[in-house]
Amino acid sequence: MNTRRAFSTDDPDVNPYRLLTALVVPRPIAWVSSLGADGVANLAPHSFFTVASNRPPVVQFTSVGAKDTLRNVRATGEFVVNLASEPQMDAVNQSSAPYGADVDEAAALGIAMEPSDRVAPPRVAGAPAAIECVLHSTVEVGSCTLVLGRVVSFSISEDALVDGVPTMAALRPLSRLGGSEWGLPPEVVSLERPLEPPSG
Amino acid sequence: MNTRRAFSTDDPDVNPYRLLTALVVPRPIAWVSSLGADGVANLAPHSFFTVASNRPPVVQFTSVGAKDTLRNVRATGEFVVNLASEPQMDAVNQSSAPYGADVDEAAALGIAMEPSDRVAPPRVAGAPAAIECVLHSTVEVGSCTLVLGRVVSFSISEDALVDGVPTMAALRPLSRLGGSEWGLPPEVVSLERPLEPPSG
Repeated sequence: MNTRRAFSTDDPDVNPYRLLTALVVPRPIAWVSSLGADGVANLAPHSFFTVASNRPPVVQFTSVGAKDTLRNVRATGEFVVNLASEPQMDAVNQSSAPYGADVDEAAALGIAMEPSDRVAPPRVAGAPAAIECVLHSTVEVGSCTLVLGRVVSFSISEDALVDGVPTMAALRPLSRLGGSEWGLPPEVVSLERPLEPPSG
Repeated sequence: MNTRRAFSTDDPDVNPYRLLTALVVPRPIAWVSSLGADGVANLAPHSFFTVASNRPPVVQFTSVGAKDTLRNVRATGEFVVNLASEPQMDAVNQSSAPYGADVDEAAALGIAMEPSDRVAPPRVAGAPAAIECVLHSTVEVGSCTLVLGRVVSFSISEDALVDGVPTMAALRPLSRLGGSEWGLPPEVVSLERPLEPPSG
């Protein structure tokens, strides 16, 4: 018997943000680098992040309110999603602090950046993979904005590739959970995808 | 020195789907239940899933092509995102098989369902949480469709709540990785979110 408690979103005492972040888990982290029109670089983590399309390849993150990243992407039309790997956990967290728009988080925190292959914003040198994007579109949803980027290049560390495919053992991806909780790289299991329904 | 390999999406030999699913990790799983206009129920996992807005609360999943879930949601305007927990791993995987539109995956696989609180599609009885949604909007992106649902109720097992907040220890969330790989519930660490930039 699974007794349930219902949290209606009509109830003003219900905190939807807390429940959404506690239930949509584990969330991959887009560690987004961008450049402002004034050339100031920005680096910030976004955990409302997914794939919007495979053909063409489009990724998206949700800007909760109007953040520096959103303003930069609107101004310059490019951004890079850096994969947040276990060794970067503290740097990713520190880069979520409310720095002013005139501050380059990477420089302030000593995070090494390097030029990207196809777009102007630099990428995180120590991240095992970077997804280089040009702005596809934005979509306003309530108090938030979906930022969709068409992928122009996947830039992946040679150390992370086996037969041309990135491996979890090398990527060591972090995730965000509810509240102040983070997930370490999960243990991996392989399940054969069913090609047809079970017979009988 | 981090030597990189660039996979340009202009290169016809590059498989964007394989790289997207290998790099946007770990992905939370929306195990979506819906009803067709003909009353036939559907249950299918979607791993391109995130939060589109916190105010109002809106979740979204990406339909890769035109699947039964998309058709149902367009026809009836409601769906439920069931949280895929570790004990359901095999059931979630089996429900991804290409069943015909006239087949109720839950019935075919013996997955117990129960009535939802606020919407017509039933929810998975054994899942620790269900996010009950009414259709907010759909957005076409390339070959895919974003399906956005406004949350009307979070229905959470009492066993999963501590002080009114769901705990990872009880939710035991699964995730999808690249290829046929799945992530088991991650080890959890707590990191204080920086309230202001480091001084000095």
